[in-house]
Amino acid sequence: MKILGFTLTALCAALGVHAYNSAYDLTLNRTAMNSSVGHETNRPLIHYTPRVGWMNDPNGLFFDEETSLWHVYYQYKPDALVAGLPIFWGHATSKDLTSWVDHGVAIEPADDVSGAFSGSIVIDRNNTSGFFDNSTLPGQRIVALYTEDSSSKQSQFAAYSLDGGYTFNYYAQNPVLDINSTQFRDPKVIWHDETQRWVMTLALSQEYKIQIYTSKNLKTWNFQSNFSHYGFLGYQYECPGLSKVPVLQSVDPNTTLASNNSSSVDFKWVMFLSINPGAPTGGSVNQYFIGDFDGKTFTADDSASRFVDNGKDFYAMQTFSDTPTNEVVGLAWASNWDYGAYVPITPWKTSMTLARNLTLRPYKPNPESSQLTLYSEPIIDHSILNTTQSIKKASLNLTTEESVFYHLTKTAKGLLEFTLEWKVNATAITSKKSPAAMTFNLRGIEDEEEFLKLGYEVNSGAFFLDRGISDLDFVRFNPLFTTRLVHFLEPYRIDQDGLPVYKVHGIVDKDIVELFFNDGSSTSTNTFYMSEENFLGTVELSSSVDDVFNVLNLEIKQLNTM
Amino acid sequence: MKILGFTLTALCAALGVHAYNSAYDLTLNRTAMNSSVGHETNRPLIHYTPRVGWMNDPNGLFFDEETSLWHVYYQYKPDALVAGLPIFWGHATSKDLTSWVDHGVAIEPADDVSGAFSGSIVIDRNNTSGFFDNSTLPGQRIVALYTEDSSSKQSQFAAYSLDGGYTFNYYAQNPVLDINSTQFRDPKVIWHDETQRWVMTLALSQEYKIQIYTSKNLKTWNFQSNFSHYGFLGYQYECPGLSKVPVLQSVDPNTTLASNNSSSVDFKWVMFLSINPGAPTGGSVNQYFIGDFDGKTFTADDSASRFVDNGKDFYAMQTFSDTPTNEVVGLAWASNWDYGAYVPITPWKTSMTLARNLTLRPYKPNPESSQLTLYSEPIIDHSILNTTQSIKKASLNLTTEESVFYHLTKTAKGLLEFTLEWKVNATAITSKKSPAAMTFNLRGIEDEEEFLKLGYEVNSGAFFLDRGISDLDFVRFNPLFTTRLVHFLEPYRIDQDGLPVYKVHGIVDKDIVELFFNDGSSTSTNTFYMSEENFLGTVELSSSVDDVFNVLNLEIKQLNTM
Repeated sequence: MKILGFTLTALCAALGVHAYNSAYDLTLNRTAMNSSVGHETNRPLIHYTPRVGWMNDPNGLFFDEETSLWHVYYQYKPDALVAGLPIFWGHATSKDLTSWVDHGVAIEPADDVSGAFSGSIVIDRNNTSGFFDNSTLPGQRIVALYTEDSSSKQSQFAAYSLDGGYTFNYYAQNPVLDINSTQFRDPKVIWHDETQRWVMTLALSQEYKIQIYTSKNLKTWNFQSNFSHYGFLGYQYECPGLSKVPVLQSVDPNTTLASNNSSSVDFKWVMFLSINPGAPTGGSVNQYFIGDFDGKTFTADDSASRFVDNGKDFYAMQTFSDTPTNEVVGLAWASNWDYGAYVPITPWKTSMTLARNLTLRPYKPNPESSQLTLYSEPIIDHSILNTTQSIKKASLNLTTEESVFYHLTKTAKGLLEFTLEWKVNATAITSKKSPAAMTFNLRGIEDEEEFLKLGYEVNSGAFFLDRGISDLDFVRFNPLFTTRLVHFLEPYRIDQDGLPVYKVHGIVDKDIVELFFNDGSSTSTNTFYMSEENFLGTVELSSSVDDVFNVLNLEIKQLNTM
Repeated sequence: MKILGFTLTALCAALGVHAYNSAYDLTLNRTAMNSSVGHETNRPLIHYTPRVGWMNDPNGLFFDEETSLWHVYYQYKPDALVAGLPIFWGHATSKDLTSWVDHGVAIEPADDVSGAFSGSIVIDRNNTSGFFDNSTLPGQRIVALYTEDSSSKQSQFAAYSLDGGYTFNYYAQNPVLDINSTQFRDPKVIWHDETQRWVMTLALSQEYKIQIYTSKNLKTWNFQSNFSHYGFLGYQYECPGLSKVPVLQSVDPNTTLASNNSSSVDFKWVMFLSINPGAPTGGSVNQYFIGDFDGKTFTADDSASRFVDNGKDFYAMQTFSDTPTNEVVGLAWASNWDYGAYVPITPWKTSMTLARNLTLRPYKPNPESSQLTLYSEPIIDHSILNTTQSIKKASLNLTTEESVFYHLTKTAKGLLEFTLEWKVNATAITSKKSPAAMTFNLRGIEDEEEFLKLGYEVNSGAFFLDRGISDLDFVRFNPLFTTRLVHFLEPYRIDQDGLPVYKVHGIVDKDIVELFFNDGSSTSTNTFYMSEENFLGTVELSSSVDDVFNVLNLEIKQLNTM
């Protein structure tokens, strides 16, 4: 990460082994964690949030096979609710990607006018780096590569952990990669089996280049190629990452499970890339490109721009290193640089998204073409959650005469999961002079006049979301907090009667809603803010037209942690 | 254009010479034009609107050197306020691109379940087509190429005019290009001098291909190449167009006019492309790609996605053929397919944008790079406008203590032109915990509580627009009418004191606002809707921070047609 326009009064950066001697009390957040602070009722239940302080991009994601723990690090400023220097790597672990343990600061910058900026972690099983001896299990030979942001430049540092990722030793010969640039950051390292090399992608940010370097030992890096000027450019490139993503050839909702089992599994390479600011929807956005990688050069299949998520709050997604069965699991920052510092939440600011399982699948964006598309499925361990209430309806014909209400308010904690599948009979639209919309409002339990408005409009073919119906000044008056979002949706499947069917799977967790359309062919992640403890708990289904919408399936669960 | 999801009860299309015998009264709009209809006070003064009926994409734009008239055709359904079949080419002319004369229908489809879809016009000076004899002046040998949309396919038709573009004869051997596709449309034809060929670009829409064909006679077309899978794909490609755009090498606002005069003039080819639906901001959007063209193949310089305009209401831009000095002048539909049919305006629906002069210039999107960018400057003939009131201020330091109001209400007709240039001293921001915003509200003259909120926020580096502050139900409740827009802005120049200066030039014409940032390096065109006759007439400048914003120049003119 780079704080836009942040100007530093120059101070030399003491490179080499860190002797961090800051005015900041790094025990602050540990103390705070153990006490009851602030508005805990607003804290998401299954999305990671730091106990106190500012958090942004996820860093160093990896899975520890020895402990079966998922490790998440992140850009962290424990003593502030806004980004600035110094910035650290915070650290959290999860055994299920659904519940989280906060471990406070893990990696520090060299001094208090520098930053331990974004980066990644790999497991150096074969000790290519020489950082380890036999006292460290191969599966716990943890090496972090990250950007040290100083007043004079951004260079790449290495650090390693001998205790399973809780504390780090800084490599004495840092930096490991330095091209004397102030805009060179966010190394994501992977092991490329075919060439038996480590591969680093990082951003030469303001030149719109993703640079690719290779190494045998994580210490000496050789430039191989640039992948540049792809996608939406915005102000600058940030947080690139290369992943080998499984291609599921046949995932057709019309076919039976048996035929799905015969799917072949193949792989394609995907380059992820974030830009900020300058997203077309404002602020931050995460893009991806599908292609091939030969160990040195990434070649995109085409020149199309595609977004990982179409919401306003999904940035800097990183994938986990060393996942158990090589599945591709990613997680992003669930906020936006345009307003993350201003959201009406204390004593922490911002959350991560849920972890997502990522695959590539053939997808029909229209009747005449098919293309590989990134599918995202949320990872939730339901075994650690109670369903406190649930509603299930089928074959509900919507009319203009009445709205259908379902109240889920018994023990509302603000955690809802829903699936809505609907069929559209466009021939029943009698006039195109007004929208033909189904609305699926999620209303507050204390005040139903605050609500999240979701829905689908037939003539535009679009799913819409309005997060602007709130009493909070932040929502009403911050013009950067764009409230209405529109997302074009292709049919999930065509029913036996020839009518299109659409599907959305949603997770609401206090002030975050993640929407997964059509099994995850597109997604939209957005934060929303309502009056304190006015959690969403009442569902309202209505239609502006008669006999156009048939809800084939509606399932809503109110969940709670055990 | 293609109406999404429009299903036709199949009827064969009578190809060949048209014998149009419709139930529609094509004289309807001519009659209506001569009477006083509906809410004429809401009609834009210098943006083209049809007198009655539905209008969308501009078509067949050309300049007639014999009459010095600019001709604009457009997708037109005179008897409806929503798109549908049959659809026609409407026609208007202008001597100054500021005032408009409506001529009603010019081109018809073959029958009333077909459409004369989008296309273009060229001047066939040398009579390559054989459509003309010496009775038609070379500069008035007008040939239209357009898509005939029938229930079975979309094929390309030719028609020619012997009376200066007011009526057309249909080529007896139509179609001139037919690949038996239902998604093949919007031919834009240019003369390529280097190869002495006509070049047609058109969309193989749902395959995301811009196809390039060449011809010697406008009748026989040979396939040359595809330009495919570039930019944001959306649901489908529409309205491509290739233009040879002047490159102004040195346009530096810090240099004097004298040094600007020494600029070299060169050219690059630009491919324009519209997509709808599926824009990241919802619905329709217009993209462009800069590159080279050898007469057969367009090669983009890079794989970046760029938008012609960043607002919600700018679609299907086309450039004028045969402009007087080969300047590139374009004009777009100032609406969005997501909601164009629902806007609270009668008895016509939707407007065109102002014409724009288009050039390519070096532009610095950030401190470390420079790239060619499309610059757009509005074309307004001020000689036909009166300035009824004007305000000019310089060096205005904004504080949190008071807002500055200027009232322009004497003879308000809703036509305003303004220039705002401001300097930002970010070091005066005392806290990053809240936005550092300058707002430039344009308030209604009848009800100041309805207003268009514009402004700039320093921490995000973004210009914002909120068109949601209105009493109208359409604005308040239509979720597809996204209200808040955010547009990242680079400095226009750096002042002598090292501080960044930004600039916006705006034109408000009843319910349309067109914003041109930094001499046109980016633009944002948006419609907005307020209570009847509540035209914008009061300007309010305010700041959420002290001493950060200095307005170097503010000029506002209230204009009227003579």
